[in-house]
Amino acid sequence: MRPTFMSFRWLLLYYALCFSLSKASAHTVELNNMFGQIQSPGYPDSYPSDSEVTWNITVPDGFRIKLYFMHFNLESSYLCEYDYVKVETEDQVLATFCGRETTDTEQTPGQEVVLSPGSFMSITFRSDFSNEERFTGFDAHYMAVDVDECKEREDEELSCDHYCHNYIGGYYCSCRFGYILHTDNRTCRVECSDNLFTQRTGVI
Amino acid sequence: MRPTFMSFRWLLLYYALCFSLSKASAHTVELNNMFGQIQSPGYPDSYPSDSEVTWNITVPDGFRIKLYFMHFNLESSYLCEYDYVKVETEDQVLATFCGRETTDTEQTPGQEVVLSPGSFMSITFRSDFSNEERFTGFDAHYMAVDVDECKEREDEELSCDHYCHNYIGGYYCSCRFGYILHTDNRTCRVECSDNLFTQRTGVI
Repeated sequence: MRPTFMSFRWLLLYYALCFSLSKASAHTVELNNMFGQIQSPGYPDSYPSDSEVTWNITVPDGFRIKLYFMHFNLESSYLCEYDYVKVETEDQVLATFCGRETTDTEQTPGQEVVLSPGSFMSITFRSDFSNEERFTGFDAHYMAVDVDECKEREDEELSCDHYCHNYIGGYYCSCRFGYILHTDNRTCRVECSDNLFTQRTGVI
Repeated sequence: MRPTFMSFRWLLLYYALCFSLSKASAHTVELNNMFGQIQSPGYPDSYPSDSEVTWNITVPDGFRIKLYFMHFNLESSYLCEYDYVKVETEDQVLATFCGRETTDTEQTPGQEVVLSPGSFMSITFRSDFSNEERFTGFDAHYMAVDVDECKEREDEELSCDHYCHNYIGGYYCSCRFGYILHTDNRTCRVECSDNLFTQRTGVI
């Protein structure tokens, strides 16, 4: 009997393994490019059931991420409970989409452009146990966009005293004629020549 | 007599050398950064006489160069014959500036932003033999700006059949659902499945 008992345990282990493998269709993709395209599994064919994929997009500081959809065809459901595409940051849900862009447009992205507040965006696609209507999923595009720190600086303590110059990926400050930039690279002060006179009388 | 004659020739050579050295204040600076600041020689002090400096700015393809001035104080003259700042491409003068932004504003840059049509811009500063009024020159800033090829493509042959996606430094094409992108990365054609039937009759 003992060998049969062992076989049964192995069988249990085998099923457990199979189950975990079928659930392992949930996976994460790390993206660090300045632009790219993401698509539902199997696109343009219909997406599989019980599927979960997360794309984590990270761009350098000084950039944001712009995301938009060129094709969107998911199962429609109340509050997108069944199949959905969720766009998030570390601590905030930016958007949740589901439905068909041809008929159930209420919760589809349409022409909407999702813009991340910072340099990170996470997109999760999830399908439930059935996809009988053969929904074809989505085709999305993302790209880094430059943050204009001169227009958008929220932190007044980091803003420039006189002039602010934005460039792709950052910004710097400069001062009006006759002033020099302090070592904090932000504040301006009157330029003092090398001939600074601190005595009341003297010889030049 | 021969040594004296030789000395005289050496003297000539010496003067020629001095003259060429004084003229050698003309020099060229190659710049390949995505942003930066350029200033007249000696800025913020007055610029020297008989001075010529050229800055050649080159940015990667897919970018243009934006140039603007925060301070401008040059000798004024008819057609900017005496002292000037000239902005050029390989084959085109984009702007010529001179004068004082406080009084002779006619030929000064003011708030003007000079945008290069391509990824190269050349800026030349030239002063004539005198700067008696101690003009203080200029302080200019440049930065690469992204070309939106999807909006600005002039060459219709390179435009996308269906969708155009701009990103910082370039662009790419994509197709509507059901079409695939041709290997030219531009045109779209109907997607053919692997089950392409070329016979009039057959068995599936």
